[in-house]
Amino acid sequence: MSAAGLSPQALAEACARVMWDNDNATRHLGMELVSIAPGEAVIAMDITDAMTNGHGICHGGYMFTLADSAFAFACNSHNQRSVAQHCSVSFIAPAFRGDRLTASAQEVSRRGRSGIYDVRITNQEGEIVAEFRGHSRTIKGTHLPE
Amino acid sequence: MSAAGLSPQALAEACARVMWDNDNATRHLGMELVSIAPGEAVIAMDITDAMTNGHGICHGGYMFTLADSAFAFACNSHNQRSVAQHCSVSFIAPAFRGDRLTASAQEVSRRGRSGIYDVRITNQEGEIVAEFRGHSRTIKGTHLPE
Amino acid sequence: MSAAGLSPQALAEACARVMWDNDNATRHLGMELVSIAPGEAVIAMDITDAMTNGHGICHGGYMFTLADSAFAFACNSHNQRSVAQHCSVSFIAPAFRGDRLTASAQEVSRRGRSGIYDVRITNQEGEIVAEFRGHSRTIKGTHLPE
Amino acid sequence: MSAAGLSPQALAEACARVMWDNDNATRHLGMELVSIAPGEAVIAMDITDAMTNGHGICHGGYMFTLADSAFAFACNSHNQRSVAQHCSVSFIAPAFRGDRLTASAQEVSRRGRSGIYDVRITNQEGEIVAEFRGHSRTIKGTHLPE
Repeated sequence: MSAAGLSPQALAEACARVMWDNDNATRHLGMELVSIAPGEAVIAMDITDAMTNGHGICHGGYMFTLADSAFAFACNSHNQRSVAQHCSVSFIAPAFRGDRLTASAQEVSRRGRSGIYDVRITNQEGEIVAEFRGHSRTIKGTHLPE
Repeated sequence: MSAAGLSPQALAEACARVMWDNDNATRHLGMELVSIAPGEAVIAMDITDAMTNGHGICHGGYMFTLADSAFAFACNSHNQRSVAQHCSVSFIAPAFRGDRLTASAQEVSRRGRSGIYDVRITNQEGEIVAEFRGHSRTIKGTHLPE
Repeated sequence: MSAAGLSPQALAEACARVMWDNDNATRHLGMELVSIAPGEAVIAMDITDAMTNGHGICHGGYMFTLADSAFAFACNSHNQRSVAQHCSVSFIAPAFRGDRLTASAQEVSRRGRSGIYDVRITNQEGEIVAEFRGHSRTIKGTHLPE
Repeated sequence: MSAAGLSPQALAEACARVMWDNDNATRHLGMELVSIAPGEAVIAMDITDAMTNGHGICHGGYMFTLADSAFAFACNSHNQRSVAQHCSVSFIAPAFRGDRLTASAQEVSRRGRSGIYDVRITNQEGEIVAEFRGHSRTIKGTHLPE
């Protein structure tokens, strides 16, 4: 499959398929790709026992991992391979065993090789549990041949 | 066991034991607590298949999770329960399947209820793979009775 | 003047007047408060010789200062005194002597004593020159008596 | 003057002279370059009326500007022109009119075109008032001909 002639939306979907098939880590955690669009991605994940401490509170690392995955799908949606350079996350409310978290990534800016993406994580009640901001940089290569 | 009469080092070790016994997430990932001291913690982890993508490159989320754990042990070493508020991470070099990563957390400042901790992640060759900075805030409660 | 009975918009305007009258630094730099609303503020500033290096490029510190001021007006618009805890800024494009920069602050989240605000800085052509994210914390006291 | 044959320390000093002569903004704020070395810079500044609000508390923007300047001198000390990409600052204690603040920048890592520098700001009592972390990127050109 080539990128030639694809609409931006079809290209984003094709890039996501290539990335998904290649990402043990994301699948291993039971993530679900809810939607993809140019510069955007939504991924959901259930908080399991293995992600929590003895009080049933989710380790911040798993919230980061979810947000980082949504960021990766969003910044790679233009068929230009991109990697994370710098990310920050603010923990706003705790998440618990059994919660279903949804991370929604949006492109804030893209200029030259640098991009900024914001990711909001909400729980099944729609409450914000974390806000993430990721800085990407394009590297050589494309997901689909051009 | 009570905190009364313990040296700062003995207190840090006792807090770490309480936290470790209670942390499914950290144990589930195969982390090893290498050392603990007041305001400091060193944790190591092997990068497994489940943490990598199809090219054998570690998902940034697992590097964050390792650093975040070292940060948590360091900022909780004074027997005052503390949580992460805001964390940032810079990815400097990739990590690969089979690498053993070591996260070393150091206290940068502690004033009132707020603390700042820097965590450096290195691989088995001593190369820096990531730099993390965590901001903590104390909450009510202690790990050992005072 | 009391806060009692004021609409959120009237309260935001009243808080901004109190802050503005009290802020040498903001006035000294020639900033103009363009608009204010609950959780929002827009401030503009012209880049002068004193803000630039010998090549006419604006020092990043002045871009940060402009964004930080918009953040301060936005997070103080609810009549609860608030201070900056942690801020980050990404420089996207240079600004030059003679440019007129506009910083637009928006509330991202507010929960308990903690708030997050995003500030975008654009130039007179509408190009993004910087993205700023500020974390606030409320302290004791109000701008107007309640 | 050429960079050829200069020691790293002599090169850092020569780069600092070129930058200083060219930096209206830094001089205009009354900054003093206290020391320079490869990957390091110390700059001091007195907090004036124009930098404070009506309560005599320094605007965070001027603390950032001081730290950003120390960061710039440190990351440009290797004769490779470098610019700030992303900076974060944590405000730990207030600074007041009449305080003399000192910003000390240290190189944390440098790899390829990317560098990380930590800057601590202390007051005349040696108390920490802010911690800053800057991410630099090299661009084309040198300060002295090679």
